[in-house]
Amino acid sequence: MAISVTAALLIIGDEILTGRTKDKNIGYIAEYLTGIGIDLREVRVVPDVEEEIVAAVNALRGRYTYLFTTGGIGPTHDDITADSIAKAFGVGIGVDPRAVALLQERYQPHELNEARLRMARIPEGADLIENPISKAPGFRIGNVFVMAGVPSIMQAMLDIIAPSLQTGARMIIETIEAEGLAEGIYAEGLGQIALSDEGVSIGSYPSFSTSGFRNQIVVRGKDPESVASAAAAIRELLGRLKGDRAPL
Amino acid sequence: MAISVTAALLIIGDEILTGRTKDKNIGYIAEYLTGIGIDLREVRVVPDVEEEIVAAVNALRGRYTYLFTTGGIGPTHDDITADSIAKAFGVGIGVDPRAVALLQERYQPHELNEARLRMARIPEGADLIENPISKAPGFRIGNVFVMAGVPSIMQAMLDIIAPSLQTGARMIIETIEAEGLAEGIYAEGLGQIALSDEGVSIGSYPSFSTSGFRNQIVVRGKDPESVASAAAAIRELLGRLKGDRAPL
Repeated sequence: MAISVTAALLIIGDEILTGRTKDKNIGYIAEYLTGIGIDLREVRVVPDVEEEIVAAVNALRGRYTYLFTTGGIGPTHDDITADSIAKAFGVGIGVDPRAVALLQERYQPHELNEARLRMARIPEGADLIENPISKAPGFRIGNVFVMAGVPSIMQAMLDIIAPSLQTGARMIIETIEAEGLAEGIYAEGLGQIALSDEGVSIGSYPSFSTSGFRNQIVVRGKDPESVASAAAAIRELLGRLKGDRAPL
Repeated sequence: MAISVTAALLIIGDEILTGRTKDKNIGYIAEYLTGIGIDLREVRVVPDVEEEIVAAVNALRGRYTYLFTTGGIGPTHDDITADSIAKAFGVGIGVDPRAVALLQERYQPHELNEARLRMARIPEGADLIENPISKAPGFRIGNVFVMAGVPSIMQAMLDIIAPSLQTGARMIIETIEAEGLAEGIYAEGLGQIALSDEGVSIGSYPSFSTSGFRNQIVVRGKDPESVASAAAAIRELLGRLKGDRAPL
């Protein structure tokens, strides 16, 4: 049995829940983690409300190998992620000299006002995650990685974090085009193939455009032979159905 | 105090968690609900695993006025949303004659095989939500609305559902450009304005491109006068800081 390393993602921010900002981080992080052999198992989006953040952090960090958060680490009053994480862990928080040193690379001493020093508030016991773009750091505490919400900064932080992560067997993903076959035609056969190997998960994904439906079948698993075998069975099934079917 | 109608959104599907499909429904639904006066308070993404879906449905339907779900109502073996919802509500599920009638508008009798009839499995006591695009219906049970995952179908279903929803006072949103001012410059003054009216929430949102940072301040609230008053105070603050500041 391949090692499974799991993760959850917590997106923090009213702007996502009102639709003002369209999230770009979920898809990016999902693809990134999958690519390095970490299974993203759950995502939550919560508002800038301390008790909601604390509850979600504590629910998720206990359930998965890692929890990643994005958003709420800027200098304004609505940036309450660091304080909420400290509360979730039951640890103190204060202005961290290491974080101040990083901010000093960007700001002149007279520019480092109280608001900007909020960005140096780091829970006790946390390690910093550097921010090569705007300097204000993220941090890691326990199995929780706290990152910026701005996509370019989050992406830079993720690159910095990645080498320190435990990773499991990488997911092997094979995509098969159903090429004109309707889901309802291949569903029964596909279900039988899906039952035949527990280590392989098979999904069928329709998408719809002005030119009609397009169906893709995706085979996922960590054992190359199992994935190849399921994919071969699916191709055989589709070939057989294509020969048989009445025109739709 | 304005009436508050709240909602959660549950996105069901392995394809989102692996990054294979980039979700487009969260942003659309968030903006849509905000526009009709429903406050989206939480989003979760869970895999195609029955116990995860059941747990999330029961956690969310109890907490908010409405729960909307997307995904997992097609004909293939990985489409387990309807059965999971029935389990969450503790009710039976079977092939629903009303849903079969809808499918018959699209499929010839010999095309209505067992897999396609899965799309007519509807929990007992549910009302159907019509699907003008591909006929397979969604459904409503209690305060839970079960919709397709394909964006165009989900959007059509949401239009059908919307007139039946209780809505609260619409959120009034005013966006103010900080025009070159850094967050750290206006953060303190903004925080004071944010404290002055509980019914108004103020967010500051940086975005980053090759041309540098751009900051937008967003004022949200349900009382027009409160929003206007906070926005005026913010504009006054920004104008004052612009006059004062040293060049950055």
